[in-house]
Amino acid sequence: MWLYASCFLEFNIPVATPFLLMLRPRSGSHQWVAREQYFLAPSVSVVEFTDPFGNLCQRLVAPPGRFSVHTAFDIESPGASDEAPGAPFVEVQYLPDETLPYLHPSRYCESDRCTRLASSIVVGEAAGYDQCAAIVEYIRNTIQYTPGAGQQLISACEVNELSSGVCRDLAHLGIACCRALSIPARLVVGYLETLDPMDLHAWFEAYVGNRWYTFDPTQSSLDGARLAIAYGRDAADVAVYTQFGDPVELLGMHVTVERRSGPPD
Amino acid sequence: MWLYASCFLEFNIPVATPFLLMLRPRSGSHQWVAREQYFLAPSVSVVEFTDPFGNLCQRLVAPPGRFSVHTAFDIESPGASDEAPGAPFVEVQYLPDETLPYLHPSRYCESDRCTRLASSIVVGEAAGYDQCAAIVEYIRNTIQYTPGAGQQLISACEVNELSSGVCRDLAHLGIACCRALSIPARLVVGYLETLDPMDLHAWFEAYVGNRWYTFDPTQSSLDGARLAIAYGRDAADVAVYTQFGDPVELLGMHVTVERRSGPPD
Amino acid sequence: MWLYASCFLEFNIPVATPFLLMLRPRSGSHQWVAREQYFLAPSVSVVEFTDPFGNLCQRLVAPPGRFSVHTAFDIESPGASDEAPGAPFVEVQYLPDETLPYLHPSRYCESDRCTRLASSIVVGEAAGYDQCAAIVEYIRNTIQYTPGAGQQLISACEVNELSSGVCRDLAHLGIACCRALSIPARLVVGYLETLDPMDLHAWFEAYVGNRWYTFDPTQSSLDGARLAIAYGRDAADVAVYTQFGDPVELLGMHVTVERRSGPPD
Amino acid sequence: MWLYASCFLEFNIPVATPFLLMLRPRSGSHQWVAREQYFLAPSVSVVEFTDPFGNLCQRLVAPPGRFSVHTAFDIESPGASDEAPGAPFVEVQYLPDETLPYLHPSRYCESDRCTRLASSIVVGEAAGYDQCAAIVEYIRNTIQYTPGAGQQLISACEVNELSSGVCRDLAHLGIACCRALSIPARLVVGYLETLDPMDLHAWFEAYVGNRWYTFDPTQSSLDGARLAIAYGRDAADVAVYTQFGDPVELLGMHVTVERRSGPPD
Repeated sequence: MWLYASCFLEFNIPVATPFLLMLRPRSGSHQWVAREQYFLAPSVSVVEFTDPFGNLCQRLVAPPGRFSVHTAFDIESPGASDEAPGAPFVEVQYLPDETLPYLHPSRYCESDRCTRLASSIVVGEAAGYDQCAAIVEYIRNTIQYTPGAGQQLISACEVNELSSGVCRDLAHLGIACCRALSIPARLVVGYLETLDPMDLHAWFEAYVGNRWYTFDPTQSSLDGARLAIAYGRDAADVAVYTQFGDPVELLGMHVTVERRSGPPD
Repeated sequence: MWLYASCFLEFNIPVATPFLLMLRPRSGSHQWVAREQYFLAPSVSVVEFTDPFGNLCQRLVAPPGRFSVHTAFDIESPGASDEAPGAPFVEVQYLPDETLPYLHPSRYCESDRCTRLASSIVVGEAAGYDQCAAIVEYIRNTIQYTPGAGQQLISACEVNELSSGVCRDLAHLGIACCRALSIPARLVVGYLETLDPMDLHAWFEAYVGNRWYTFDPTQSSLDGARLAIAYGRDAADVAVYTQFGDPVELLGMHVTVERRSGPPD
Repeated sequence: MWLYASCFLEFNIPVATPFLLMLRPRSGSHQWVAREQYFLAPSVSVVEFTDPFGNLCQRLVAPPGRFSVHTAFDIESPGASDEAPGAPFVEVQYLPDETLPYLHPSRYCESDRCTRLASSIVVGEAAGYDQCAAIVEYIRNTIQYTPGAGQQLISACEVNELSSGVCRDLAHLGIACCRALSIPARLVVGYLETLDPMDLHAWFEAYVGNRWYTFDPTQSSLDGARLAIAYGRDAADVAVYTQFGDPVELLGMHVTVERRSGPPD
Repeated sequence: MWLYASCFLEFNIPVATPFLLMLRPRSGSHQWVAREQYFLAPSVSVVEFTDPFGNLCQRLVAPPGRFSVHTAFDIESPGASDEAPGAPFVEVQYLPDETLPYLHPSRYCESDRCTRLASSIVVGEAAGYDQCAAIVEYIRNTIQYTPGAGQQLISACEVNELSSGVCRDLAHLGIACCRALSIPARLVVGYLETLDPMDLHAWFEAYVGNRWYTFDPTQSSLDGARLAIAYGRDAADVAVYTQFGDPVELLGMHVTVERRSGPPD
């Protein structure tokens, strides 16, 4: 399936301000970036590097005044994500090395404090995929998905107390519960074709049955093509933009995703 | 300066239990491991890998019964850590790529919630080393260092509220405040020659003046040779041992550090 | 300076054939990729990964029949490469770790057999940049640059014996001589705005004066913007395409580079 | 099986000379380093780093006069290496990313010039392990193993022409032939318990049947415990020591390997 996705960000910058951006998706086993653009206005010099999680990150200093970032992509991606009821838990000693950092608690996923919650959710479930599915079901039934709310980043435990959150928050709770069961889980930030209202999106992946599977507590199914921009332990690792110094004003943000009939020409 | 350091851990294991250990220090620019031993009793098969922060990690499954890990090292290391009052703050755009992960908030260092605290501590200080030194001074004056207390991991904000903590907790608070000022900071777990009572130790490093400097809120000076075992964002990254599954019993832990007159023979 | 660069490759594939491609440049400190496209016809699934030298590599299986790859880029890059006569040699013990692999001999750069040649070329030159410049001057005066000749890959020693070669061959000889003097040197494959006739190009970089500098024995000056696609020890690391199995037919290859008046819109 | 292995190197150093050493083995899935020592006399400061192939490398400047390096290890390792007749060839598109650098030609393994030779050797063999075994058999029958000869590094093609070589040379020829058949192959430098006369040793590994297998053209069987020190494309990547600048004198080298009845105490 071919998608066109774009993200436009515009800032008002009072004084020259360093930014760290994570807006360039990588081609991987599940997505192919056939065309991309990454425009900065005004044009400034940028240094790109790869972070410890394999994401391409861009560093720049935004000059005073209006500053905009416009990225757009033509990608090929499956029209739905795989499901695998029954896929087994992988014992810690057989996990691939690169999954291990995703077992530890992290800033917004305090898995060390979710053991009781996670255990209570998965009572009677087979270890592995079915536990993850039960966690997602619990979140869907318990936490109010309130897109567009809350700029303030809150942690999994706080989400559970508030019973409300944005996509990122619901994903954080899912991740924390999976890790509490020794299942590696990571946050994904990206685009989802069927999201409504359209915005950047966040979901999570869990490692069971010897691969990563997609889980999305905000959606009733895994239908719809996805474009992953960045992976990390939680939102502390994968902010789409991080600015340093005095706060700047985000004047606007516009995201589009459209299905295309074929490859771009 | 030559040191001999050792750590002995003994567990009672009810059922076969996977462990992740971080007990093998690396030779680096500040320490040279001339001799090391890493004994497991009973002997089990181990896989070693390198984590995203460059630490050597060992993975194994401990068999039921008594299980012990005994590591010992002869190392050369400076007799005191460098100080650098006045060393300047490094603007974000000039930081080396590998320092950037240490700017973000992490599980036990919620720097995103320490901005006001950090700002209030460093009023009037020159940006950089002097800010870090003021943070350390604040911790020394405000937080009760209670070695041996608290197995429960608490976060920097919790440490500040409790006004009490172990070495790791004080380091977490220092890290969180540094990051809140856009100074990369990381946790170090290792041995300190002059620690009393002797135990494994934790301190932190901050990146100012174009290199990492050692800070230790639990000690009145930076005298004494140190042996770093592992680096990470916080204790979630650098647990000396992590066990998975049902809790096991730590029967004992014994740490020694001795100064030697010369290299081992 | 803004450039538009494109590369079109077309093959006739008798049986399904695995390919390894290195055609996606990365944004770095010297170039910013503002727009790129990477089209495959027919469209096939691709896996992208990062090789040990930091290059983005694409792996796919080309289906039988006509198969084409079309990449195009809008990039910003300096209009000329820096020169630094007098930049000093960096003693081996002070070289950054990541430069060390570029000190060793490699498939097409047998630096271990070029010591005498290199020493004779640089007699009287100051150690560092001036030695590299003398090596480039030697190659310009001694080796006939024959663009378009020789599909057969030959090594630096063979180039020196033949006194003739394509851009890659001249770069190999330069690299081998630099390494023979303990100067790290690496091959760069990419686009050069001023190349005539237009084609993909290869040059080399040497590490002196604490950074990498560009050297190009095929050109009389370092004028003209460059777009680097991939870096490696020599052509064995950075083939633009590698095919496995029975040979396929390259039906055509077309490369363009054009200067643009400003950023793409 | 428990082994004790040691390597003693002594040099006469006319002027301060930078060295790159690769003498510290890593614990991995096939070996566990329970005790190690790494002594330098006189003691000098050392920086350790990890190269692109995962090896621990030590960098130092040897002072004028006698300089010695003494390493010793107690390790656990299997008493023989696995064999797997019939293990299948892995198609290039299914190879793990990290094996791909071992498909390319390298300094001493000009696989691009061994296609005809390799094809002729493996006529009638099943693709995969059996091809590797046939290559090893060819080398055993055709190339005279002359331990202790030839300090001069020669390439696989040269080895084949000379019909004689040291362990490293025979391994290079095996590697070049494997790669010519699209089988990833890498050089291993280490210790072999049963080597006679005792010395450091080199052999190779080929990736078939979804894992690396050991091949050793110098030995009639795979019996005997091995301790791997370093892996690389060929000897250009894994010299046990590399010195820069004017040649130094190797006064002596002494290697021991002994089987032990149990773990060290």
